[in-house]
Amino acid sequence: MALQLEVSLATEKKEKPDFNKLGFGQIFTDHMFVMDYSEGKGWHDPRIVPYAPLTLDPAAMVFHYGQSVFEGLKAYRTRENNILLFRPDKNMHRMNVSNERIDMPQIDEAFVLEALRELIKIDQDWIPSAPGTSLYIRPFMIATEPYLGVRPSHSYKLVIILSPVGAYYAGGMKPVKIHVESKYVRAVRGGTGNAKTAGNYAASLKAQSEAKVLGYEQVLWLDGVEGKYIEEVGAMNVFFKVKGEIWTPALNGSILDGVTRNSVLQLLRDWGLPVHEKRISMEELQQAHANGELEEAFGTGTAAVISPIGELNWNQHQMFINGQEVGELTMKLYDTLTGIQYGEVEDKFGWTVKVL
Amino acid sequence: MALQLEVSLATEKKEKPDFNKLGFGQIFTDHMFVMDYSEGKGWHDPRIVPYAPLTLDPAAMVFHYGQSVFEGLKAYRTRENNILLFRPDKNMHRMNVSNERIDMPQIDEAFVLEALRELIKIDQDWIPSAPGTSLYIRPFMIATEPYLGVRPSHSYKLVIILSPVGAYYAGGMKPVKIHVESKYVRAVRGGTGNAKTAGNYAASLKAQSEAKVLGYEQVLWLDGVEGKYIEEVGAMNVFFKVKGEIWTPALNGSILDGVTRNSVLQLLRDWGLPVHEKRISMEELQQAHANGELEEAFGTGTAAVISPIGELNWNQHQMFINGQEVGELTMKLYDTLTGIQYGEVEDKFGWTVKVL
Repeated sequence: MALQLEVSLATEKKEKPDFNKLGFGQIFTDHMFVMDYSEGKGWHDPRIVPYAPLTLDPAAMVFHYGQSVFEGLKAYRTRENNILLFRPDKNMHRMNVSNERIDMPQIDEAFVLEALRELIKIDQDWIPSAPGTSLYIRPFMIATEPYLGVRPSHSYKLVIILSPVGAYYAGGMKPVKIHVESKYVRAVRGGTGNAKTAGNYAASLKAQSEAKVLGYEQVLWLDGVEGKYIEEVGAMNVFFKVKGEIWTPALNGSILDGVTRNSVLQLLRDWGLPVHEKRISMEELQQAHANGELEEAFGTGTAAVISPIGELNWNQHQMFINGQEVGELTMKLYDTLTGIQYGEVEDKFGWTVKVL
Repeated sequence: MALQLEVSLATEKKEKPDFNKLGFGQIFTDHMFVMDYSEGKGWHDPRIVPYAPLTLDPAAMVFHYGQSVFEGLKAYRTRENNILLFRPDKNMHRMNVSNERIDMPQIDEAFVLEALRELIKIDQDWIPSAPGTSLYIRPFMIATEPYLGVRPSHSYKLVIILSPVGAYYAGGMKPVKIHVESKYVRAVRGGTGNAKTAGNYAASLKAQSEAKVLGYEQVLWLDGVEGKYIEEVGAMNVFFKVKGEIWTPALNGSILDGVTRNSVLQLLRDWGLPVHEKRISMEELQQAHANGELEEAFGTGTAAVISPIGELNWNQHQMFINGQEVGELTMKLYDTLTGIQYGEVEDKFGWTVKVL
């Protein structure tokens, strides 16, 4: 039976915030998309409804056993007032990869993407237009069955909420200081590292807080087996430019398959740069730095797009990168990706999807 | 400022279920305990209120970043109609260990335990009396702030719900078949394995489902670093009796510090048995089995108390234990522990706490 999207519009609309003072993820639009899953019945009742609280039994399994996955993507308003999404099919697909890992049902990727497009059309007035601003889109799926036994839930809810967000680099792009984490582990081979599941983020908070106390903005995660190999930085993938070549950790099961990571790799290869997806040890990176060969470093993710790294702190090694300035390649990637996202640079890979 | 517990009783009480047909964790009592935390203000508004759904913003951080911990303990009705708790201070303390690991605020353990006692008194009619039945108690704490950035929440909710549960071994105690898990990992050194956090359980579901398909009831988890050493079985700690001596994996940071595990260790030492908390490889265990030295195996946890293991399947090795019969020591531990819990065996360690 084909799913049929129902729409109930809000009778009263919220007051819009000052679009020049948007932060991140604290303001939400007038509507949301909701769809329910019940064992035996499958997904049902897809609907766009006024943004409202969720009412869940205290025994709802998401509170106890953490079956929860999410995605993050953005809609961009172009100078010509079109609305573009950036590779949304990648997010829908990854949601299903995450669902599979923690034993949640698959979604119909095409249907949910279509519902998202409808939702964005309805709340289009919430998409800001100032440079660097966008509409952050958060699809998430949670276990709702009220049951205290450890097994997969028999019911779920898929929700999409929208949040207008300000420019990530409102005060200009500034390289971040990173603490290389030796005590805590984010994920391990055989674990959930390549799934965008809530528990991975809960597990990361303590290291983040301790790094902040030491004066660092993020942590660089090492592998959980040997504590030697580079995985991710904060909630982003990470890249290094060494003697003109690009290194990034290979996808090994414990690293998230980032959409921005994938796009950066395609751009770099298109530009003819030598790219190595490989296992990178901190030892090797530190050696490259000591030899003056580590030219640039940056994180990639939906929120920041590209985040330059100015300093890495690993045990006794304080490694400054590119004089703590934004590197040339880092800047070129940022300008190209955001240019494509806002429709100002030719989209030769067909990454953008026009909503309006 | 001292916390002041407020009580609002339900005007209508639910119909009681058939206490002879109780399952596990699907029926809840008339009331629940709730307390809120706000940054700056701390914990406030502790209250016992009618059992009701929780209303949370769709952006509430628990849905996205998994800050959620829980505990599980039971209240037992004795033959004399007293109500006993079993080592509840251990659960309250462990909740704070879990809170610390995922950067959530500490609770006042004594205050929450006192509130729990009040809640149990109010809902005492829900505590069943048939042999093996009890009132399962589920305290849990979740992040409630509506915010989509990755950092600890600024607000939380602590909730305690109660569920009358049937006898775990209603059909008699039966040894379980266990699949030794070589593909998936539950937790790793530096991770969250010793915290009772929701994400650990989400991470465990897929392995459990795949083991079920193969005909096994639970999985035995191996360490995340080498995939060699025994950690836990399902959501329980695990013990082995080898040539009259007891082995259990030492607490290493990735294993949960079980209250039943701790109690079993005390009993065994009190009985003069040689007990080894140590690193146990599957190789070593399989060797002991091959030599005919593996006499008994069992899991320990709040729900089952003691769960005998009749078969372990590891790679090519199908290991039957004690002819798939419940072992003598296994049975003695079960009888002693449940005897203490129901007030029928002398509580020489002072483990039980009388509520009524």
